[in-house]
Amino acid sequence: MQVRTDFENILTSSAQIIENELKSYLNVENSNGLNEIMGYSLLSNGKRIRPFIVIEAYKLFSKSTDIKPAIPYACALEMIHTYSLIHDDLPCMDNDDFRRGKPTNHMVYGEDMALLAGDALLTYAFEVLANNNYVSDKSVRLATIALSKYSGFAGMAGGQMIDLNIQKKPLTYEEIKNMHALKTAALIKCALVLGYLAADDAPKAEIVSDLEKFAQNIGIAFQIRDDILDKISNSDTLGKPVGSDEKNQKTTSLSFLSLSDAEAEVKCLTNEAINTIIKYYEGYNGEQTLIELANYMINRQK
Amino acid sequence: MQVRTDFENILTSSAQIIENELKSYLNVENSNGLNEIMGYSLLSNGKRIRPFIVIEAYKLFSKSTDIKPAIPYACALEMIHTYSLIHDDLPCMDNDDFRRGKPTNHMVYGEDMALLAGDALLTYAFEVLANNNYVSDKSVRLATIALSKYSGFAGMAGGQMIDLNIQKKPLTYEEIKNMHALKTAALIKCALVLGYLAADDAPKAEIVSDLEKFAQNIGIAFQIRDDILDKISNSDTLGKPVGSDEKNQKTTSLSFLSLSDAEAEVKCLTNEAINTIIKYYEGYNGEQTLIELANYMINRQK
Repeated sequence: MQVRTDFENILTSSAQIIENELKSYLNVENSNGLNEIMGYSLLSNGKRIRPFIVIEAYKLFSKSTDIKPAIPYACALEMIHTYSLIHDDLPCMDNDDFRRGKPTNHMVYGEDMALLAGDALLTYAFEVLANNNYVSDKSVRLATIALSKYSGFAGMAGGQMIDLNIQKKPLTYEEIKNMHALKTAALIKCALVLGYLAADDAPKAEIVSDLEKFAQNIGIAFQIRDDILDKISNSDTLGKPVGSDEKNQKTTSLSFLSLSDAEAEVKCLTNEAINTIIKYYEGYNGEQTLIELANYMINRQK
Repeated sequence: MQVRTDFENILTSSAQIIENELKSYLNVENSNGLNEIMGYSLLSNGKRIRPFIVIEAYKLFSKSTDIKPAIPYACALEMIHTYSLIHDDLPCMDNDDFRRGKPTNHMVYGEDMALLAGDALLTYAFEVLANNNYVSDKSVRLATIALSKYSGFAGMAGGQMIDLNIQKKPLTYEEIKNMHALKTAALIKCALVLGYLAADDAPKAEIVSDLEKFAQNIGIAFQIRDDILDKISNSDTLGKPVGSDEKNQKTTSLSFLSLSDAEAEVKCLTNEAINTIIKYYEGYNGEQTLIELANYMINRQK
C-alpha cells in the first residue's frame, strides 16, 4: 500500500487539535507556576503520533467521527510521553542539552524544576484521563490500569531500566528487541488500547492482543529504522548528528544485522503488523490511517 | 481528650498490615529488577500514617470493620508518598544521604535508578488504586481524580515548588502555611477522601469539605510541632540533628511566632480540626481513631 503524499498533512492537522487541547489543560490556576514549566516541554509542536493513534483507533472501533471521547485519553498519553522525555534528558539519565532543536527543560528551569515538572505531568495525566466525561466509569477504570501498566515498570519504565543497564553488560539481539518493545512499543500499545477503550468499555481480549502485536511490530520496526537512518542519512535531512551510535559504541540492531538484513527486517515486521489488524478495517467506511501510519513510519527519512 | 497509652501499638499493628500488602504488590514478574529498587524505599517500616487515615476514614463512613475495600487506596497513597521522598532526597532537590537511619535510595542504587524507581512507584500507584475489586467503577474514577489532584501541581508537587523557591524570596507566614497546606496537608486530605470514597461512591461535597478542613488544620499543626521539636528537643529523642532550621537559616513558623505562641497555635488548630469532624462520630460504634491521631500528632516527642 502506498502512503498518500499528503499523509504528513493529516498528521499535522491532528497534531494541531491535540496542541490546542493540551494548551487548555495547562490553563489552570493555583499551579504556583509549575504549569508554565510543564508547558515548556508539553507544548513543543511534536508530531503527536501517540495521540493520533489513540484517535484513529477510537474511530476504527467506535465507527464514529466525533472524536471527543478519545481526546482526554490522547492528551493523557502525550503527557506521559512528555514526562518521560523530560526525565530522560536529565543529567543523571541521558544528560541531553537539546531536544527538537531547543534547550531541554532542565537547561531552562534547572534540574529540580524539570524533575518536579515531569512528576507533575505524570500525575496530571491520570486526572485528565479520569475526567473524561464522554466515556463510562468502567472505561476510565480500564484506561487507568492500561496507562499505568504500559508506562510503568512492566512497560516504558522497565525499558528505560534495561537501557540504563546496557553499559553494564552486553545485550543480545533479543534483549535489544525486548528493550525497544518496552521503551517504544509499550506506549504505542497503550495508544491503541486507550483508543479502543474510549470506543468500547467491554474490550475483547483477542482484539487487545491483536492491537498489542501490531504495536510491538511497528515499534521495533521504527527503532530499527532509526538505527538505519543514523547510519545512512545525513545530518541536514535528519536534523540531528548522524553516526552517533557508532561513535558512542552503542549496541543497536546494526550490531547484529547487515544494513540490507535490517531493511528487510523492517519491511517484514511492518507487513506482519498490518496483517494483524487489516481485518478490523473490513466494512469500515473511514480511511485506513493506522496502516498508512505503519508505512509512513518505516519510509520516513527523519 | 486523652490519647490512649497504647495508641502507638494501634498504629504499629495497622502499619504491619500495610507493610504486608505493599510487599505483595511488589511481588511481580517482568520488572527488570525495578521492583527491588522501589521496594528498598517502600518497604522501610514507616509509620504508615496516611494508609492508617485511609482505613480509619473508611471505617467511619462505611460503618464496616472489613477493611478490604480501603487497602488498595491506602497502598496507592503510600506509594505516592514514597515516590515523593525518593525524588525529594535526590541531589538536585534536598540532597539527603540518609532517611530514617538508612542510606537514601540514590545512595544505594544511583541517581538514575532512584529517579526511575520514583517514577515507577508514582505510576504503579494508579494501577493499584484502579485494580480495587471491592469498590465500584465510579469510586475508582473519583479516587483517581483525587489521588492525582492532591498529589499534583495543585497539591503536593505545588508545595514542593514553593519550597524550592523559598531561597529565591522571603516568604510571609501565610505563604509558609500555604506551603505546608500543600506539601503536608494535601496528602492527608487525600487519605481522608480516599477512605470516604472507598465507603461511598456518591460523596457529599459538605463532607469532603469538612475532611479537607480537618486535614488542613492537623497538617499545619503537625508542621509547627516539627518546627518546635527542632528547637526544644534533643537529637537522641528526635533521632535526627536538632537546631538544623536555625543553622540553615530556614524560614519556619518560629521565624514569626514565639515558642509559646507556636504551642498555642498547634493546640488551637488541632481543636478546630477535631471540632470539624466530631459530628461524624455521633452514633458510631467504633473508636474515635482520627481524633486520637490528631492529638497523638501534636503530643509526639519525635
